[in-house]
Amino acid sequence: MPQLGLLPRRTWVTLLSQLLRPPRAVCISAVGCHSQVAEALLTSQPKPHQEKQNFIIKIPKGTRDLSPQQMVVREKILDMVVSCFKRHGAKSLDTPAFELTEMLTEKYEEHSGLMYDLKDQGGELLSLRYDLTVPFARYLAMNKLKKMKRYQVGKVWRRESPTIVQGRYREFCQCDFDIAGHFDPMIPDAECLKIMCEVLSGLQLGDFLIKVNDRRIVDGMFAVCGVPESKFRAICASMDKLDKMSWRDVRHEMVAKKGLAPEVADRIGEYIQCHGGVSLIEQLFQDPRLSQNKQALEGLGDLKLLFEYLTLFGIAEKICFDLSLARGMDYYTGVIYEAVLLQTPAQAGEEPLNVGSVAAGGRYDELVATFDPKGHKVPCVGLSIGIERIFYIVEQRMKNSFKKVRTTETQVFVATPQKNFLRERLKLIAELWDAGIKAEMLYKNNPKLLTQLHYCENTGIPLVVIIGEQEQKEGVIKLRSVASREEVAIKRENLVAEIQKRLSES
Amino acid sequence: MPQLGLLPRRTWVTLLSQLLRPPRAVCISAVGCHSQVAEALLTSQPKPHQEKQNFIIKIPKGTRDLSPQQMVVREKILDMVVSCFKRHGAKSLDTPAFELTEMLTEKYEEHSGLMYDLKDQGGELLSLRYDLTVPFARYLAMNKLKKMKRYQVGKVWRRESPTIVQGRYREFCQCDFDIAGHFDPMIPDAECLKIMCEVLSGLQLGDFLIKVNDRRIVDGMFAVCGVPESKFRAICASMDKLDKMSWRDVRHEMVAKKGLAPEVADRIGEYIQCHGGVSLIEQLFQDPRLSQNKQALEGLGDLKLLFEYLTLFGIAEKICFDLSLARGMDYYTGVIYEAVLLQTPAQAGEEPLNVGSVAAGGRYDELVATFDPKGHKVPCVGLSIGIERIFYIVEQRMKNSFKKVRTTETQVFVATPQKNFLRERLKLIAELWDAGIKAEMLYKNNPKLLTQLHYCENTGIPLVVIIGEQEQKEGVIKLRSVASREEVAIKRENLVAEIQKRLSES
Repeated sequence: MPQLGLLPRRTWVTLLSQLLRPPRAVCISAVGCHSQVAEALLTSQPKPHQEKQNFIIKIPKGTRDLSPQQMVVREKILDMVVSCFKRHGAKSLDTPAFELTEMLTEKYEEHSGLMYDLKDQGGELLSLRYDLTVPFARYLAMNKLKKMKRYQVGKVWRRESPTIVQGRYREFCQCDFDIAGHFDPMIPDAECLKIMCEVLSGLQLGDFLIKVNDRRIVDGMFAVCGVPESKFRAICASMDKLDKMSWRDVRHEMVAKKGLAPEVADRIGEYIQCHGGVSLIEQLFQDPRLSQNKQALEGLGDLKLLFEYLTLFGIAEKICFDLSLARGMDYYTGVIYEAVLLQTPAQAGEEPLNVGSVAAGGRYDELVATFDPKGHKVPCVGLSIGIERIFYIVEQRMKNSFKKVRTTETQVFVATPQKNFLRERLKLIAELWDAGIKAEMLYKNNPKLLTQLHYCENTGIPLVVIIGEQEQKEGVIKLRSVASREEVAIKRENLVAEIQKRLSES
Repeated sequence: MPQLGLLPRRTWVTLLSQLLRPPRAVCISAVGCHSQVAEALLTSQPKPHQEKQNFIIKIPKGTRDLSPQQMVVREKILDMVVSCFKRHGAKSLDTPAFELTEMLTEKYEEHSGLMYDLKDQGGELLSLRYDLTVPFARYLAMNKLKKMKRYQVGKVWRRESPTIVQGRYREFCQCDFDIAGHFDPMIPDAECLKIMCEVLSGLQLGDFLIKVNDRRIVDGMFAVCGVPESKFRAICASMDKLDKMSWRDVRHEMVAKKGLAPEVADRIGEYIQCHGGVSLIEQLFQDPRLSQNKQALEGLGDLKLLFEYLTLFGIAEKICFDLSLARGMDYYTGVIYEAVLLQTPAQAGEEPLNVGSVAAGGRYDELVATFDPKGHKVPCVGLSIGIERIFYIVEQRMKNSFKKVRTTETQVFVATPQKNFLRERLKLIAELWDAGIKAEMLYKNNPKLLTQLHYCENTGIPLVVIIGEQEQKEGVIKLRSVASREEVAIKRENLVAEIQKRLSES
């Protein structure tokens, strides 16, 4: 993987400026535009054919192809994220796209109906992975690993109703970083929050805030409010909808659907309005009801320590202790967190971006033990970057900027102004490839020079080498800069060295 | 993606040398070893727990996890392959892991029983992709693209009996490069063969040979031997097994299972012994039977032109015209090719590596039209790198060399010799991260210095910064080289600059 990490913010700016070339006469809405305009230089003559009846070509609901323009942007974002994970000493891991169904069931409870199952074709019962966390826990238990700091980038699949317009799909990519092992409290947890800050600052998505809470505080709050223990997870799942629904609607779900007493719901309603920093932690330590709950006190104690470390990391002002944060996954046991973007006035001209959380995670100390025959515990804490939503935001911004993305990295184009120079071009381009130079030519015996030069302008190739009768006679090659249109003659045998010199200077 | 392409061979050597550090006192069979030896510095005390009955934790048949050691090697190989694809001007594309089943059926005929179908959960009928070629053709047709040069790296799934020992899995990665569009004959085809040569030379897998044939020659040969046209594809599929079975067994299958007359099989048997270069093409032009077949003559004419271009590319000596080559996929229509490694005497000490083909491809001019309602044709030619087999070979070689792979890129470790320095370490490491330096520390309040230094030695971290009482008093930090054990005191405020200087020099 590339070493993009040395100066994250500056590197990202450089990368973006490489991506974005000044718009040309014809503005192309670059990212997300599936038509390959640059490709359409030569027209082809399709042969007539009898039409097929009712043949509609499409892809599965909630999925999408990623065009070259989209892939360029996505790869830059992923490089940025992965370089941050590597900066924190993480190793890479890959697991299969599907797992034995029995390995996944019971891990997601409220969500397991959303898993994609494979058809029973006479073998094992299999399901596509729903996230990267459960396979990681399965990997740790299966290999009896007691500690590991790993990252994983990969697709996961969920049969949700896709709201594609906001970057939610049934197939989507996750970027996970996790720390497994028995360690002193809150040190790895603080590092996870530091990583979320580094990624979100590095990607320059605008101002953001990370909400923090603790499952033990959530459960403690439920207990002192009078929620029966059997309803903890169900009420927690309702609370998790607060970013999409108002408290009124969440309260209604708790009471009408989950059978909670109205006064219990109202007590919860009071607590979840609380958000703040260290002072809120101190305040809750004094709370007459919460201070009676052992679990809640443990959670508060850990959060206090966490904030101390976050201050040392210089990121405390990005973190907000928020009692309304619940997180959907059943496997969380301790600290939980979720990053949201704040809409700043400067971006008022843009379409409102309501993308929900862009990164989230938490501590899950019991998950690995559920895979271990002897129930050995491996405490874990981690985070997941919501790369699809980030990608959606960057894509929107680039669309609004009308800038064109280069989808190839070709450095040199091999052209000729004359007929019957195919063989010379083939020899020349092979020489460039063998020297590691990124080179293209048109796959035509006798292309027109103008067509060749247009191809370079349309695809952003900076240099052209031109060989013709005159050059061949003189033992030279013309080297042309596409931007300045300047041409110089270079001795045939010096060509590769000269190109390499120019490329290293640019 | 990284710019690894400038000097492929040299770059690869550099990469490998970065991967391989001298073996330490305890030799670890590095790649493929799932136990995280370097991680096991601190032992944990798992709590007793009641044992679960009959709980076996495993992953689906024919799949595997890729450990950090394996991922490091795999990513270097993939970087190498992708940089070659980019050197030839290819764009990146991604398609979903599954497609509508109806998009895939009829594309693989003899193989479609090996597709993974998804369970019907009340939506569309879906299947996991079987290769990257059919989704590419579907993408072209769906977006009405008439030309595109793209690469795609991704997993595909086939329900074959896995022979895992030779690097064959049910889930495996493919690296595809394809050129779609109407072009002058054999120019893109020659480039595909050039790319295969560049990748295989660049990866230094030893000597190799690329077998070339043409589906029109295969069909022409079948026709003049007396194979009924209805049996062409079935006999072709039998012929494709010649790399795993003897001619005797293949002939038996043709006669006993596919109902071919023995004398017809024998005529085929004579032809498929032919392999050679341009002279064989000339010889077959004169063949009394084959020269009467229009298809075969077209194929021979194109192959002749192809060899001319391969000579200009300087790779003709790596290519062998081989009449026994058939290729399994039904969609090929023209030139086909397959690269095999040649066992050289120099590698005699190693386990024999019988891995079959490591790269293959061909021309498929009709596939896109099958997706187009009007049957518009987009001719295509492409190749697929058998990355799993290449990975298997590199893995075996590394196992034999007893060299240890670094699985992290951490540059600096933050240590302390004293108790109660956690806060100082946290402040210091955040400063390093913010400067883009890859840094780690132990997640302990009061780790022993020896434990910290051992961690660096075991994981290959080159530099240690040490902060203690003495250093704090003097306003300095000690910077230690792990290899030389030399320590120098550096002013606290100059630390980041000094580390960056050292890292840029190394």
